[in-house]
Amino acid sequence: MLNVDKQNDTFLYRQVIELITENMDTGTLLPGDRLPSLRKMSRTAGVSIPTVRQAYVELERRRRVESRPQSGFYVRHQAANDIVRPTRTATLKPVPLRCRSLMERVYDGINNPDLVPLGIANPSMAKPAAKTLHRIMKRVMARAEERSLGYASTLGEPALRRQIAYHYLDTIGVQVEPDEICITNGGQEALLLALTAVASKGDVIAVETPTYHGMLELIDSLGMLAVEVETCPEEGVVTSVLERTFDKYPVKACMFSTTLGNPLGVTMPDVDRERLVGLLEKYDVALIEDDVYGDLRFDGQRSVPAQFLGSKARILTCGSFSKTAASGYRIGWVVTRNYIDEVARLKRAFSCSSGLLQQLTLAEFMASGDFARHLKSLTPVLQRNSERMLALVAEHFPSETRTSRPVGGSVLWLELPKKVNAEQLFDDAIGAGISISPGHIFSPCACYKNFMRLSFGHPWDEKTETAIQWLGHQVCKRAST
Amino acid sequence: MLNVDKQNDTFLYRQVIELITENMDTGTLLPGDRLPSLRKMSRTAGVSIPTVRQAYVELERRRRVESRPQSGFYVRHQAANDIVRPTRTATLKPVPLRCRSLMERVYDGINNPDLVPLGIANPSMAKPAAKTLHRIMKRVMARAEERSLGYASTLGEPALRRQIAYHYLDTIGVQVEPDEICITNGGQEALLLALTAVASKGDVIAVETPTYHGMLELIDSLGMLAVEVETCPEEGVVTSVLERTFDKYPVKACMFSTTLGNPLGVTMPDVDRERLVGLLEKYDVALIEDDVYGDLRFDGQRSVPAQFLGSKARILTCGSFSKTAASGYRIGWVVTRNYIDEVARLKRAFSCSSGLLQQLTLAEFMASGDFARHLKSLTPVLQRNSERMLALVAEHFPSETRTSRPVGGSVLWLELPKKVNAEQLFDDAIGAGISISPGHIFSPCACYKNFMRLSFGHPWDEKTETAIQWLGHQVCKRAST
Repeated sequence: MLNVDKQNDTFLYRQVIELITENMDTGTLLPGDRLPSLRKMSRTAGVSIPTVRQAYVELERRRRVESRPQSGFYVRHQAANDIVRPTRTATLKPVPLRCRSLMERVYDGINNPDLVPLGIANPSMAKPAAKTLHRIMKRVMARAEERSLGYASTLGEPALRRQIAYHYLDTIGVQVEPDEICITNGGQEALLLALTAVASKGDVIAVETPTYHGMLELIDSLGMLAVEVETCPEEGVVTSVLERTFDKYPVKACMFSTTLGNPLGVTMPDVDRERLVGLLEKYDVALIEDDVYGDLRFDGQRSVPAQFLGSKARILTCGSFSKTAASGYRIGWVVTRNYIDEVARLKRAFSCSSGLLQQLTLAEFMASGDFARHLKSLTPVLQRNSERMLALVAEHFPSETRTSRPVGGSVLWLELPKKVNAEQLFDDAIGAGISISPGHIFSPCACYKNFMRLSFGHPWDEKTETAIQWLGHQVCKRAST
Repeated sequence: MLNVDKQNDTFLYRQVIELITENMDTGTLLPGDRLPSLRKMSRTAGVSIPTVRQAYVELERRRRVESRPQSGFYVRHQAANDIVRPTRTATLKPVPLRCRSLMERVYDGINNPDLVPLGIANPSMAKPAAKTLHRIMKRVMARAEERSLGYASTLGEPALRRQIAYHYLDTIGVQVEPDEICITNGGQEALLLALTAVASKGDVIAVETPTYHGMLELIDSLGMLAVEVETCPEEGVVTSVLERTFDKYPVKACMFSTTLGNPLGVTMPDVDRERLVGLLEKYDVALIEDDVYGDLRFDGQRSVPAQFLGSKARILTCGSFSKTAASGYRIGWVVTRNYIDEVARLKRAFSCSSGLLQQLTLAEFMASGDFARHLKSLTPVLQRNSERMLALVAEHFPSETRTSRPVGGSVLWLELPKKVNAEQLFDDAIGAGISISPGHIFSPCACYKNFMRLSFGHPWDEKTETAIQWLGHQVCKRAST
């Protein structure tokens, strides 16, 4: 049974993964069971030990198994709900945005500070860095005095760009030149500059489905069209579908999140990243890579952005401190080798430069090691919150509910029973003092009508728990009528 | 001689102005001479006393005469240099930007903090508000703690929008709703949002000539074309030429500075503003009104932005704290009745929101009266600096040099002898540790080759004087070879 087919053109380790997941799905391997040892599996499946190890590690990343030190790999206990799956597999058409007014209602709703903020993705508040940042900023003001009120340079404060470059070196061993980094007004302006550098009005931009509504609004505001590409929970954008999209439409650029995408929470495995950049090279399509959640993997690792995989593809990577330290500072960045001059020109034309005081403060926050320490204490809080949220959903939502399996970031994506309309749920939730993000706004054609996104990136308290229970109760009621 | 022609369709008070300036130009009225009293002039010219008063006040605004309390109006002593005049009067064609690379060289040059900064228009450094702003920000951090690190709302912090609305009420008696104001990342993003709200790629935008290079870069970055419109030192954009431009080209929007334009320093008289909005209504053209120098008139008054003149024209007014309090805060705003929803949508798509900490700080800076006090102490410093600079130019530059006559703001515009190329002068000045802005970058076709802009908005010291002397010496040398 366990022999893999070496003539099959699927990678061998993927065949191993399939064999094991089949056994899990049929109940041969149950939660708590130990997987065969690497050596044993190598023999029975007829593949090398490293291939088996690659398969096991990947299964661990997908949270299907867990490794126990000095013992081996075990089948994980899954939460009660199934994992959410893409519902649409066809190649979709480029379309203008059709859910503008709902987006505005959602923004108006979630901006209210009196609500339980399950609609706001910003996770830094789960473990606020306020005290440290305030202390540093006071020091900066005392030291820089009048200078700190003047203009920063167009590319941004050199000290901060050096720290960001060092952060890449430190976390993923990649050498980035500070002069290939442009500081922006948060991740959103980074996306604006990157997109304007490679595309203009009328162009077609490929996005994941579902995808971050801020990207959809940006594409729409610039008079461009979005084409959705199927995305799966294990691999991110399905590259075979992407290729069909490239064949069918004149795609000018892709705007993808390669790590912990919002709302699905997918991190593209390296092998899929490589396939992606191969396609970008082959079709000469630019990639705007949204990496604003890059620092928030629960395992403390950082994935290597597609830009650094050594290809010749034209890639601009967008980062931000909004999801990790201080949203209100409005400081993000673009890293790009190919387009830095163009990005600088656009930055100057669109907003001159970014706030100097915040840049000086964040530079010191990073240089002092406070940023790394902050991340180290932030991600376990987020992980604990995500587990609490999953448990409450399993307890209070209908059993047909399917959810994403967050391995980082701050959001949970839920597929509710078909009968439940998330827009009505949103309205009622606002009335009950709770904000959520209805699935509609994560697609240009507003198609995720029975989906919603919940944020676990805020301080966890009794109100949070009550809000989730209330939502579960509402969903049950609507599903059964 | 002094009888005005009532059949002539020029306003009567303008005819009075012409009669008097003719007499000044021919030497009949010399500097120091007293103008005829209002009553006497009314009789001799055959017009009413209010008409004569209107003419005299306008002549005073143009700095041709000065009023002395309880005595009357006197012909002013003019500085040694003539006033700079527009050199091109024909209607120009819409063109793409032709001076990109020089603009980049200029920005690279002036960003160097070691230079004498005669190239940087930002005037706030003449009277830094650093201590007060730092004190307030510390208070805000202590009070708002974690909240101050979160997102501001899309339109911006309500307290700041209320203060800006109150500032309009207080200075010009105009009622602005806080919800008609959107806070932006400085004046430059205000221009971006306003322009994107009314025009898109391929559209033709009318600009003054010469005009602020940041507008030209913005128009170019959005794939639009700029058409220059003749601008005169007394009236700003010449409305008759503007009308011909509207007849000839499909102008989608105008981007004008109605108060203390950069670099000419012109403030449009009310009567011309009214003619302008009349034209905008007639041709249904939108106006983006750059009012970032609005608070910097030396006489402490504020002109009423064209938007508030009661017309139905579509107008978006852009303001900023960059020229008055803290450039590095990157906080500006757009006021608009017609487009506020569109501007908010674009703000969200382009950069989410602006820095909250700076917004809270500026709101308190305004509410406490510190902002008004700061302006009151800033403008006399700027005026003194402008007089010192004019005197040095008169002393050290060739006599053919012509200059603007600043009545506010922080920049002086100079026309040098024809032989002098300001781009070469810029290069040599950088070598000598001085930044200037060569005239080329103030026109899309780089035509002000023997012009330059000098800033007097920085703390005045010996280095400033030496730098101006050095420039004068260089200009003399080049003019005579």
